[in-house]
Amino acid sequence: MADGLSAGGIAPGERHADAVPGDLAEALVAAGRRMDQRGWVPATSGNLSARMDSDRMAITRSGVHKGFLTARDIIAVSFDGRSLTPGGKPSAETLLHCQIYRLWPEAGAVLHGHSVPATALTLALPDARAIHLEGYEILKAWSAFTTHAAKASLLVVDNDQDMHRLASRLAPALEAGDAPIGYVLRGHGVYVWGADVTAALYRLEALEFLLATEIERRKII
Amino acid sequence: MADGLSAGGIAPGERHADAVPGDLAEALVAAGRRMDQRGWVPATSGNLSARMDSDRMAITRSGVHKGFLTARDIIAVSFDGRSLTPGGKPSAETLLHCQIYRLWPEAGAVLHGHSVPATALTLALPDARAIHLEGYEILKAWSAFTTHAAKASLLVVDNDQDMHRLASRLAPALEAGDAPIGYVLRGHGVYVWGADVTAALYRLEALEFLLATEIERRKII
Amino acid sequence: MADGLSAGGIAPGERHADAVPGDLAEALVAAGRRMDQRGWVPATSGNLSARMDSDRMAITRSGVHKGFLTARDIIAVSFDGRSLTPGGKPSAETLLHCQIYRLWPEAGAVLHGHSVPATALTLALPDARAIHLEGYEILKAWSAFTTHAAKASLLVVDNDQDMHRLASRLAPALEAGDAPIGYVLRGHGVYVWGADVTAALYRLEALEFLLATEIERRKII
Amino acid sequence: MADGLSAGGIAPGERHADAVPGDLAEALVAAGRRMDQRGWVPATSGNLSARMDSDRMAITRSGVHKGFLTARDIIAVSFDGRSLTPGGKPSAETLLHCQIYRLWPEAGAVLHGHSVPATALTLALPDARAIHLEGYEILKAWSAFTTHAAKASLLVVDNDQDMHRLASRLAPALEAGDAPIGYVLRGHGVYVWGADVTAALYRLEALEFLLATEIERRKII
Repeated sequence: MADGLSAGGIAPGERHADAVPGDLAEALVAAGRRMDQRGWVPATSGNLSARMDSDRMAITRSGVHKGFLTARDIIAVSFDGRSLTPGGKPSAETLLHCQIYRLWPEAGAVLHGHSVPATALTLALPDARAIHLEGYEILKAWSAFTTHAAKASLLVVDNDQDMHRLASRLAPALEAGDAPIGYVLRGHGVYVWGADVTAALYRLEALEFLLATEIERRKII
Repeated sequence: MADGLSAGGIAPGERHADAVPGDLAEALVAAGRRMDQRGWVPATSGNLSARMDSDRMAITRSGVHKGFLTARDIIAVSFDGRSLTPGGKPSAETLLHCQIYRLWPEAGAVLHGHSVPATALTLALPDARAIHLEGYEILKAWSAFTTHAAKASLLVVDNDQDMHRLASRLAPALEAGDAPIGYVLRGHGVYVWGADVTAALYRLEALEFLLATEIERRKII
Repeated sequence: MADGLSAGGIAPGERHADAVPGDLAEALVAAGRRMDQRGWVPATSGNLSARMDSDRMAITRSGVHKGFLTARDIIAVSFDGRSLTPGGKPSAETLLHCQIYRLWPEAGAVLHGHSVPATALTLALPDARAIHLEGYEILKAWSAFTTHAAKASLLVVDNDQDMHRLASRLAPALEAGDAPIGYVLRGHGVYVWGADVTAALYRLEALEFLLATEIERRKII
Repeated sequence: MADGLSAGGIAPGERHADAVPGDLAEALVAAGRRMDQRGWVPATSGNLSARMDSDRMAITRSGVHKGFLTARDIIAVSFDGRSLTPGGKPSAETLLHCQIYRLWPEAGAVLHGHSVPATALTLALPDARAIHLEGYEILKAWSAFTTHAAKASLLVVDNDQDMHRLASRLAPALEAGDAPIGYVLRGHGVYVWGADVTAALYRLEALEFLLATEIERRKII
């Protein structure tokens, strides 16, 4: 990797403590490339982050294509949404990443993508507050599910451009009971998290598989 | 790039001023490769262009596959549709590119592709003059939209083999009000533009995402 | 290419005159790889050929995966279906290639693939003798069509394991009027041809685009 | 291949006789990569195995992504389901592989994947005990079928987390009459086998083609 921010390099004006570790940057770059290959991050949509410690994350900067990331596109941001990388502009949706890291200390990475099935299914069900999933072996991708016979409820939330308001609306559902398998913003896309970037990516694959299958199933019943 | 036309090389009989800049040719070649990977330029369909200055563009020559372009396949054409590259034959649809560059000085690149969703959706709606899009976060790929709650109207125009007539039919809709997000020729494909090849490609990804999602949504409502 | 059959190499026991020219073998290998990337040659399905001269073709041998061809998988076969390559076993469907080369001297390559749309559409229309295509700009991939307003009829023929009988059933339709754009064997796949491997591949892309679009269009009307 | 387990390398504490042959490991790694490219092994789903001899197989270890396997992820397991590789943990579903190898001495490899069509089709048909397939040329990928006119019955079995119970439920159907073309666990995925990894992969491609086509066919009839 030729990029100065990886491998612990420090950009001018940056505090050493806030440099994004090279392995986190590399993992996010690779995850973005894979999400793009699957068609889950059209244009500059989506954002990807990984926890640095108890109050900071590494996250994709605003306005870049997630399939063509370089380490310079990954910036450090505090859990209250401030950029710690000089010149770094986090996207508005960074606040939703903050909310997840604060709620679950075990969340080590958060992935947000825009897929055709997530968008089409939530727009086709304008009043749905959840998508009910049942009989899917792949639910076992989440350790809370030990059998396909379990019933999972995928939270669906109306989209909002005001991220503080959106986070407030999300809070009750996220804080009630067990951690959800992720959630979908209507007409927008999914949020999913895991212990690290790899674990989050596997859950994203499982969640997108569920949504793609659910939309196919509905076409033939 | 081993091709003489890139990097400012001049083919025999070509005026220096009309040589296609190497970076524009490279950007168009890469965009064609990506459009092919997505399945948007079957056979020799589609055409891609980038503005050179106030009266000339670089554009793919007629009859080549857009997934396997080389810099020699990119020719210089004036905004009245004449080839400035010796031996270069622009496609008939070049006139639609001319129209866009003349209407919007900020248009730096125009992409035209043939996708299955764009073709299927417009043929399935034989009388539609527009496809109404609402609730899509990805509309924010166009700066005119700052919220998913906006309603966008994607212009649909009947196909025509007479490009002068087609451009005349397009003119009133293109010139009325704000610049549209692009348009679709029925049974044919989309036209989209942006400040440069990268920006146009991102908008193409956003537009094809909208069309693919819209067709999926209609299958399950 | 490390294979002795390419670049004019001659295998032991092979007559020089029957060696498959290296450029034909390479073109068929590349076409097979692309057809596989598009999902058109599952398992060992499909076969690809190119005319060598007025009575011989180069064709994929029986039982190999078309996405992983090497030049050794391309054998010479006479237009009456006999292998001219020692040890070479042509597939039964070679006779359909023979028929096309004999009918049209301008046919330089024949491609046969198995796609999901071609198979699903013909099985869903068990009595159809043709699929009517109208309003498609991509019809211009065939020079017989100069406008999207043309109506094309894609011949559909019931599948048959007896290739002589199948060729006989095909003959009247193939010999009547202008050369067709290709044909589909029901539940099986398409046959398409062109002046050379590249031209045939472009037509295959156009034909598969038409079938994929037609199946999508029918889902939402 | 840089991995010590391939090419006959022996890990510390491993008996030479139980080392997975390098060619088997390589074939399984390549098959996993291809299954991932097709979208058939989301997250850590699926498992792939190859017969070593009359009482042992090489199989993917539990919990790894099948698109990113290395030879170290392939472990030796006896046909009663015990790991023979120190530290190797086979997945619970290994028992289903054991059952297939014990029933058919000619089975040299078993592939299990999770595809959207297999999952959507079996969930949409909650009471089906089989999916009837007719008119498909690709059925000839199984030597038991010499014509598309044959009728094939693809066994569908309700999913179960108890592998002993599931194997017992499968046994009567698997042991009755000719070897089936494979089977589908409802809401879960397919099992298919062949003489070696390549043959099994071709049958998997054929089976997934059948399922994808069947789901498309049902959308337009």
